[in-house]
Amino acid sequence: MKGVFVHHTATVEKHANIGKGTKIWHYAHVREFCDIGKNSVLGHCGFVDTWVKIGDNVKMGNKVSVFRGVTIEDDVLVGPHVTFTNDLYPRSGGEWKIIKTLVRKGASIGANSTIICGVTIGSHAMVGGGSVVTKDIPDHGMVYGNPAKLKGFVCLCGDYLEHVKRGRTAVEMRCHRCRKTFKIGIQDYKKLER
Amino acid sequence: MKGVFVHHTATVEKHANIGKGTKIWHYAHVREFCDIGKNSVLGHCGFVDTWVKIGDNVKMGNKVSVFRGVTIEDDVLVGPHVTFTNDLYPRSGGEWKIIKTLVRKGASIGANSTIICGVTIGSHAMVGGGSVVTKDIPDHGMVYGNPAKLKGFVCLCGDYLEHVKRGRTAVEMRCHRCRKTFKIGIQDYKKLER
Amino acid sequence: MKGVFVHHTATVEKHANIGKGTKIWHYAHVREFCDIGKNSVLGHCGFVDTWVKIGDNVKMGNKVSVFRGVTIEDDVLVGPHVTFTNDLYPRSGGEWKIIKTLVRKGASIGANSTIICGVTIGSHAMVGGGSVVTKDIPDHGMVYGNPAKLKGFVCLCGDYLEHVKRGRTAVEMRCHRCRKTFKIGIQDYKKLER
Repeated sequence: MKGVFVHHTATVEKHANIGKGTKIWHYAHVREFCDIGKNSVLGHCGFVDTWVKIGDNVKMGNKVSVFRGVTIEDDVLVGPHVTFTNDLYPRSGGEWKIIKTLVRKGASIGANSTIICGVTIGSHAMVGGGSVVTKDIPDHGMVYGNPAKLKGFVCLCGDYLEHVKRGRTAVEMRCHRCRKTFKIGIQDYKKLER
Repeated sequence: MKGVFVHHTATVEKHANIGKGTKIWHYAHVREFCDIGKNSVLGHCGFVDTWVKIGDNVKMGNKVSVFRGVTIEDDVLVGPHVTFTNDLYPRSGGEWKIIKTLVRKGASIGANSTIICGVTIGSHAMVGGGSVVTKDIPDHGMVYGNPAKLKGFVCLCGDYLEHVKRGRTAVEMRCHRCRKTFKIGIQDYKKLER
Repeated sequence: MKGVFVHHTATVEKHANIGKGTKIWHYAHVREFCDIGKNSVLGHCGFVDTWVKIGDNVKMGNKVSVFRGVTIEDDVLVGPHVTFTNDLYPRSGGEWKIIKTLVRKGASIGANSTIICGVTIGSHAMVGGGSVVTKDIPDHGMVYGNPAKLKGFVCLCGDYLEHVKRGRTAVEMRCHRCRKTFKIGIQDYKKLER
């Protein structure tokens, strides 16, 4: 793999596909048949399972675990100690069905969060540190807690969006910090849990 | 240790007792004087402390930490990133008393859960991902949250048990999926927290 | 570094400053330009980032991650799987501002807790296992939950302080176990969340 940096203490299995500019750090383990895009990072003790798909510019912190069935699009940040899952009825023996999870482009997952399989984390959404995500998060949604609840919407920069005005099908919101405006669909807006 | 697989990056101390068919994966650390049974697994960056007792067919995911004072019976699943504890009053210096924890046969502990020492996790119980377990869980009990609360009962297969009928000393319950029936003691049933 | 123990599987970068008697265990990673004091411990798979400052007699359990911007004073216990953070608006790309966190002398952080950056954890405070710390904790404060709430005050030994009598500026409290007495400022006492 040309242009891929693998720290000499890491383990990358044959048949792992890793894009140019990606860095695999200390004691990480990357399994065969996964795809990791370009300019991504897997931190200290990170783990990427077989058949996982990870995009470009994805930053995965220390001790992240990404299991089979998970897809992570471009520009996602996965904070340290985050773990995904892929089994809703985990047992030591017996049958086992992999449940899929999708993290859309530009989303961020805060440190030490647990992602219960079967959910979609929307584009540019943000999951607060220590959350347990048990249901879908809309695009730009900000969630936190155990279980994680939708508490607001965030900008591309990560800061809060403020309510500007409500239309028939969408709510116009503006970034507290960088003043960009976004339209949040009324169905998503109504999911806010105060 | 004949018939034990230890990945070449893992550290297994002398005087660790590990049964046939057990696998110790990348960067894991198994300390001396522990017992791990047959056909068990310790995942990437897992840790098993001195004097820990672990049964047969126990699956421990990535980055699990099992400390002295913990006993895990046969057929238990310990999800990724789960940590046990063994000290109720942790301080950097001073006295230190180990508090015991027991995980009974066939139980499952969801990803990234924290087990506060002193509890018994009942046979075939299930702990949802991201939980903080602070009290005993009855056999077949399903708990989740921080602190973890008893929310239902589960089958051997892990799916929910439905209430069939209440007797004088037990409630008859049937698996939603595989239709097996179980009797849940009335004292355990009353612990449900809605 | 004389008198420092570094396990042969660990990675300690040049220009890391580590005091005498400190132990760095299996697969841990200590980055350059950090300071770790004397007689401290970094457990299995632990991580200490650049420019972190850690005092003497600090015990850090397995899989702890301490990031740039964090200062840990003497005699602190950091339980296994604890992660710190240093970014309030984490995104994969773009600007990035480090937010500082301070852990004062003698505090303890329970297993698998998440420390959201920007907080001060008071001297001899205690954070229960699995907590998500989002605000300052007063000296001797006992917090737990997600988000962590102030539930009481604790002794040097870690056990609960009982209310003895209330003065004009402070509440006198006595340790349930070792009978030491402490004065807790009235402003801190009023922060208790039942």
